[in-house]
Amino acid sequence: MLTYPRFNFKITHRDPGSRARLGTLVTPHGTIETPNYIFCGTKAAIKGLSPAQMREARTDIVLSNTYHLMLQPGADLVERMGGLHKFMGWDGPLLTDSGGFQVFSMGHGQVANEVKGRNKSHENKSLLEISEEGAVFRAYTDNRKILLTPENSMEIQRKLGADLLMQFDECTPYHATYDYTARSMEMSIRWGDRCLAEFERHDNGAQGVYGIVQGGVHADLRAVSATYTADRPFFGTAIGGCLGGTDEEMRGVVEHSVPHIHPDRPVHFLGIGRIRDVFTFVRLGIDTFDCVIPTRLARHGTAFLKGAPGETINLKNACYRNDPDPLDPENLIPASAGFSKAYIHHLLKAGEILGPQILAQHNVATINRLMREIRTAIRAGTLADLEREWLGSGV
Amino acid sequence: MLTYPRFNFKITHRDPGSRARLGTLVTPHGTIETPNYIFCGTKAAIKGLSPAQMREARTDIVLSNTYHLMLQPGADLVERMGGLHKFMGWDGPLLTDSGGFQVFSMGHGQVANEVKGRNKSHENKSLLEISEEGAVFRAYTDNRKILLTPENSMEIQRKLGADLLMQFDECTPYHATYDYTARSMEMSIRWGDRCLAEFERHDNGAQGVYGIVQGGVHADLRAVSATYTADRPFFGTAIGGCLGGTDEEMRGVVEHSVPHIHPDRPVHFLGIGRIRDVFTFVRLGIDTFDCVIPTRLARHGTAFLKGAPGETINLKNACYRNDPDPLDPENLIPASAGFSKAYIHHLLKAGEILGPQILAQHNVATINRLMREIRTAIRAGTLADLEREWLGSGV
Repeated sequence: MLTYPRFNFKITHRDPGSRARLGTLVTPHGTIETPNYIFCGTKAAIKGLSPAQMREARTDIVLSNTYHLMLQPGADLVERMGGLHKFMGWDGPLLTDSGGFQVFSMGHGQVANEVKGRNKSHENKSLLEISEEGAVFRAYTDNRKILLTPENSMEIQRKLGADLLMQFDECTPYHATYDYTARSMEMSIRWGDRCLAEFERHDNGAQGVYGIVQGGVHADLRAVSATYTADRPFFGTAIGGCLGGTDEEMRGVVEHSVPHIHPDRPVHFLGIGRIRDVFTFVRLGIDTFDCVIPTRLARHGTAFLKGAPGETINLKNACYRNDPDPLDPENLIPASAGFSKAYIHHLLKAGEILGPQILAQHNVATINRLMREIRTAIRAGTLADLEREWLGSGV
Repeated sequence: MLTYPRFNFKITHRDPGSRARLGTLVTPHGTIETPNYIFCGTKAAIKGLSPAQMREARTDIVLSNTYHLMLQPGADLVERMGGLHKFMGWDGPLLTDSGGFQVFSMGHGQVANEVKGRNKSHENKSLLEISEEGAVFRAYTDNRKILLTPENSMEIQRKLGADLLMQFDECTPYHATYDYTARSMEMSIRWGDRCLAEFERHDNGAQGVYGIVQGGVHADLRAVSATYTADRPFFGTAIGGCLGGTDEEMRGVVEHSVPHIHPDRPVHFLGIGRIRDVFTFVRLGIDTFDCVIPTRLARHGTAFLKGAPGETINLKNACYRNDPDPLDPENLIPASAGFSKAYIHHLLKAGEILGPQILAQHNVATINRLMREIRTAIRAGTLADLEREWLGSGV
């Protein structure tokens, strides 16, 4: 039986008015307070920021994507280089996903669209076959055929050596039928058991594995899947798969799942992380979030800003051309304190990469501040006030 | 008469075997030791590095380009924002050029090619007219016609507010005739006087202006131009214009110029900065260098490395795929100390911008180390030994 002796999750405070909770999540690479936000370093790098800059922005935990790393540079190389922590220079807690999300995104069209209910053309079908054994896909790097199974997803994640791992699952699209989603969810359960068996065969206590709740937008399927994860010796629970086409459907998915998951394990929400989402889903019991948007928005000139209508401002906007004020002096990092909005506007207009770099660090620092303030507000019982401060008229 | 009371240049040591010398260059934003290297922040930003990262790489002085800044965001805006130091967040010594190099590069084809004697097609002829008054060109940003004169080059540089300024001059191409080069050099002399007159009208002691030696590859013209700069109250001397088609011609240009310039003023060599150039021209009496290559090479995956044949290694090379060693542990900055060559190779293969960012900081740090070691070696009389250490079999 898996016991995860070097891991721990302890709920330290519960909000009387919601499912929101404070916790401490202990890993071999350090302890983080929850709720918290896991920043995406897809290819073993946060886009535009060094680990030192991530620490400067007060980051606690990052993730990297198994799918990308298995193709380039390969798990064996990362293992020979001493594992992902050493390879990428991040000595804090680290998570890897299973590779499934990206494999299936290329079969079902863009899963990022599908998960969020957007019906886009299936432009990139590199997924060749899904069977009980696993999924066969073509590598985007060199076109070779690759079979990804529960067993080798675990093997790859073991070689990468992150603290927190994800079971291999099929990520079903929004437009899948009920029957397809049900059969897929049942297969993900069988895959979950194969992941646990493989994980246990090699377990040396250095890693903890999460089960993933699937079942699309269907309450009964989510309940079955969530109950399964609670019944098995996973260290944590992740909510994944199709999250619906609207904020309401996404909320429904979590509401259908959370009552059935293990109440004492950390709960991760896969791929969701706008500021309004964080407020909504912290209240529904989510402990950790991940999303690419802090750095992706930065590449488009967009900054998260406390109190801004719609969460963000776009520094390319001409109204910032003459604005001598810093972006957000309260962040207390060089990225915000030192530069005027006029300067960042100029960098974006001039196509200087330093513009997105500054905004990436600003966005990461802002989200980390959001999470610190949320933790303080949960303890103080002032989450609703804090939400109004952050989202302004957007609430 | 211009006296530059807040500026000073003092030669503290002379190499008995060459013209190499040590100096201290005092500006209102700090004092630097020479020989030194001025890093290019073309559009008010070093490509890929924040001022904090430049300081971390032990940078003393940077420059920015008047031509680019006058078009975007404009000198008036920079002035309203408190000047270039404040705008770009660099509080150390700062230099601007006159705008001439870029204006003429677009009329004569790529001056960067012409200056170095490469005969490329004149693909980009935005220069419309050169007359005694100045140069008319079309802005690449919005196609408007702009007249740049000695007077408004000085005005723009005054508004930008750098410490060290350059006179406006015509930068003649390699393939210009002797007669054209001679007439152009004489016009640059008249332009120099107009620059000094305009500069003196507004001088408040915060800036120092350099005269520029022109005259192509012709010894007699270089002598006339150099003698002119020595006769006028410039704070420093820059060697510019066509530098020839070979290393020998470039060396000749400096050898023809230096004996005639003012012996007590700082000497800047415009746009030249490979490691072998630094060794060659320090010996000929150059005090400061500038070149875009530290950050440009980084964008191509190339790292300066002490002792590497040809000065550099390219981290994209497959031989680094499995190399666990850091790029250069002696640089003692996070960019070099923390990351293996295998990791940087991976970042470049994966198209992660962090790769060029790491290499940019590495290259800047390496060049700054080169300059520190050169200063130490001049004092110790061991410049030849140091050159062998840096250039290995390339010497």
